[in-house]
Parts: sequence; C-alpha cells; structure tokens
Amino acid sequence: MEVAVVGLGLMGGSLSLSLQQEGKDYHFIGVDSNEQHCATAQALGIVEKCVTLEQAVASVDLIVLTTPVDVILNILPELLDRVKPGQVIVDFGSTKALICQQVNNHINRSQYVAAHPMAGTENTGPEAAFAELYKGCINILCETALSSKEALNVARCLFEDLEMTVIDMEAADHDKHVAYISHLSHVSSFMLGRTVLDIEKDEKNIFNLAGSGFQSTVRLAMSSPDMWGPIFFQNAQHISLALEEYIRHLQEFKDKIDSNDRHSLLKLMKEANNIRRILKKKD
Amino acid sequence: MEVAVVGLGLMGGSLSLSLQQEGKDYHFIGVDSNEQHCATAQALGIVEKCVTLEQAVASVDLIVLTTPVDVILNILPELLDRVKPGQVIVDFGSTKALICQQVNNHINRSQYVAAHPMAGTENTGPEAAFAELYKGCINILCETALSSKEALNVARCLFEDLEMTVIDMEAADHDKHVAYISHLSHVSSFMLGRTVLDIEKDEKNIFNLAGSGFQSTVRLAMSSPDMWGPIFFQNAQHISLALEEYIRHLQEFKDKIDSNDRHSLLKLMKEANNIRRILKKKD
Repeated sequence: MEVAVVGLGLMGGSLSLSLQQEGKDYHFIGVDSNEQHCATAQALGIVEKCVTLEQAVASVDLIVLTTPVDVILNILPELLDRVKPGQVIVDFGSTKALICQQVNNHINRSQYVAAHPMAGTENTGPEAAFAELYKGCINILCETALSSKEALNVARCLFEDLEMTVIDMEAADHDKHVAYISHLSHVSSFMLGRTVLDIEKDEKNIFNLAGSGFQSTVRLAMSSPDMWGPIFFQNAQHISLALEEYIRHLQEFKDKIDSNDRHSLLKLMKEANNIRRILKKKD
Repeated sequence: MEVAVVGLGLMGGSLSLSLQQEGKDYHFIGVDSNEQHCATAQALGIVEKCVTLEQAVASVDLIVLTTPVDVILNILPELLDRVKPGQVIVDFGSTKALICQQVNNHINRSQYVAAHPMAGTENTGPEAAFAELYKGCINILCETALSSKEALNVARCLFEDLEMTVIDMEAADHDKHVAYISHLSHVSSFMLGRTVLDIEKDEKNIFNLAGSGFQSTVRLAMSSPDMWGPIFFQNAQHISLALEEYIRHLQEFKDKIDSNDRHSLLKLMKEANNIRRILKKKD
C-alpha cells in the first residue's frame, strides 16, 4: 500500500517507522511545508521521497494527515475535492468536532475516516519519531457511520498493524472527553512550567530541585505551541469549562491550606487518590 | 555501621536496599508503628529486625528519620534528648524550616543533620522501595553550620554511598524553593486528578482516554495524603503563595482562550517551553 504522510513530525514519522519495522507492505512518501523536516525524514528512512500535496493525491492509496489541527481543517475539504475512487484519507487530529463538521456534507465524505490516536510525547519533528509510539494505545474513530466500509477497513487494518485498540465515539463526545482528560493535562502542565519560571527567578534552583515528580508533572509544558494552540482554540468551549473546574478545585485546596483545615485537605487528597484505581488497570 | 530506619516506607526501604546492594558495611534495624510494614520490611530484607524507638537509640550509630514530617517534628526533640555521644540523627523530611527551628537550641543539636533527598515516587510502603531510588539525585542539607563535623561526615558518606549529589541551603530558602517546584507540582497533580474524577463521570472514559501525557501529569495525585498533608501544612505560607500564582496563570490562560486571543496564547506556551532548556540539562 502506498501511503502519503502529510506532516512529517512525531506522529507521522512514528507511523512510518512502526509499520516499516513490522515488515508490512507499506511504502511511504511525505508532504511537509518545512524543507528541513522533509530532508530529515528522508535521512531517517521515514519516507522514500517528499512530494507536493497534489502529487501525493495523484499517486497514493492512503493519505494520513498528521499536521496541526488548523492545517487539517484547511486542507481536508480540498483533499476530498480531489480524492480518487478507492483512495482513503485519515486524519490524526486531537480535535474532531469542527473537522468532521467541515466535511459533513462533502460528496466524498465516505472516503474519509476521522481518527485520534491517544499517543504522543512532548517532543516534535521527525527526529522525535520512534517505532513504538502507538503500540498498545487507544485509537478513537469518530462518526464512523459517515465513512464507507472500504475506507473503515483500510483504517482499521492500519491501526491493527500499529497494534492499537480502536474505539468508536461521536465527535462531540470525543471533544468533550479529551478536553477533560488530555487537553486539561496539557494546560495544567504548560501553566505549571510558566508559573515556576515566573516565581523561581534563579534557574539553578529549578535545575537542582527538579526531582522526578516535578519533571513528570511539567513534561507536557515542553510540547509544541504550534501543535497545541490550534487544539485549544478548536476545543475552546470544553477546555474553558474544564479549566474553570480545575481552577475551582485548586482554589478550594488553597482555602483549606490557608484556613489550616487539615481534615478537609486530607479528604480532598484521598478523593484524588482514586485516580489510582483507574490508572492501575492500564498497567 | 548500625543504622535504625524510623519509618519503613518507600524512602526508608529504598535507603536500606540501595546500601545493601552496594555491599557497603551497613546493618539495618527498623522502627515503625505499623506492624504490617515491619513484617513486610523484614520479609523483603530491608531490615534485620524491628525494635522500639527506645531500643533503636540504645544500640545504633545512625538514626535516619523517614516518617511523615509531622512525626519527625514530634520525635526529633525527644531523640536528641536521648542521643548518645557519637550517635548521629539524619532526617529525610521534605520541609526543613519548622523541623530545624524546633531543635535549634537543643543541647545536642550538633548530632543532627537536616537533609532532604530530592527523590520519590507516587507509591508508599516498604513494598514500594527499590534500590535505585536515590541514585544520581540531589540531596539538600540545611543549616549545616549547626551540625558537628563528625555528624556531617557520617551523613555525607551515607549520601555518597547512595550516589547522591549534596548541596547546602538555608532551611528557609529550602522551604521556599521546594514549595515553588516540588510541592506545587504535587498540588497541581492532586487537584488535576480530583477535577477529572469530578467532571468525567464515566470512569471508562478516563481509562480509555488516559494517554501517557495525562498519566504523567496526574501521577503524583496517587501520592500518600498522610505523607503530603503534613508537608502542605508545615510549608503552608510558601505553598499558598505558589498556588496563588499558579491559579493566576491558569486564569490568564483561560482568559486568552475565552477571548480567542491566539497570539497571546502562543506567547504563554512559548514561555512555558523554556522549562525544556533547564530540564534537558538534567538528561
């Protein structure tokens, strides 16, 4: 199968490296507006060559969109205009409602599959790609009723080859739930990083006192603004609500500290501990 | 050297396992009010036997306090009352100002060394202990001018054997800086866990959508309330200030999302990205 990866970063690069490592019959070409990323992706064996988006649509069986979500929103309708019979387009964007809505009534909608692989790291660019990124992770497919059986079959085979578990969700539900879990974590971490840089003037102290706990909590603050900015804006309503709740809980915690209310503070922490019950099932 | 570990959890257990693995000449006995922890620590080879605090003081060269900080605050003066010539007491508490202040004028103050190893995990109890916990981590010694050369020498040798890097800091400075970095991360993570449990009513969604990013950010929410409650209260003033700043930054971020101010939001994220420059030096 001939695949065009549009966006040669962590996600697109890892997709190619994983499937090549498995020895599956996939051949990869790349599309990226960043020439340096094109050169690196070729040097790392992620893609055989780089072409324009037009050239990609003219030649491949499957187009995978791994760009920031604002770029997906821009190019998906145009790609569906040009898609040839039998071709399939899959996007890997972290938001789904606006993207799906944009092409909802497109005449070639059935050749598109909306996906969101729950995988990633704080690193970006093709040099951040690694073959194990997707292995064992969940992949959410949205609005599958609007995709053809053939397109879904291509996407499901791809995700099976990546050793991912596929679940279905409506796009609106997807956006709400990922705001509460994934997107909120990113905001929490971005602003933890900024707060610490702001109040801890001597960077030597951050270096010395950053134990594994701080590093784990602040890791996502190193994520790409170009990738995450568009996610935050496309999912603004749900993220704003989640953030409001997070701020409310932090304020409640602060109030208990300020009023020396030990009993209530312990109770809040014990409630938070319940996250262990859910996460340990994943181990 | 005969060592009594007071508090047979992650910190105390890892101390013993590490030094035994190194084949150093240390022998460990344990003190813990939790009989199950005593039995487990003996079964895991963390300590040869468990004794009372009185028996420990009567027989060992070095007493290491790895209990919650409220317990350290309670038992340290009493231990210094009973300490014999040549004996050394080291505490591993995550707060230092109140503990140091409590024994500042004690006649045997010089036999005590105030330490804070910047190491830990979200797990508790002797079964969570592992030999590599301290390796390569920073250990902060406070108010070293009040400790005797002999006591400092015992502590420094211990930390060298654990392959830790020792730095000195005044207790008040320590508490301020760890509030900004370590303690704030814990509050951030505890309340992220609680917020997500609160707004995401269907736990199946948390399980399905918890990628590596969420897991990393929320990991510390699984920490022990018995260990962390007393830390938050002993360091309430600094943590409250750090938390106020964190809430302010989160609110600013929310305002930019709500007002669709893309330029400013990107700027905030790029500023947060600067944490990478500091953390990558640690790799």
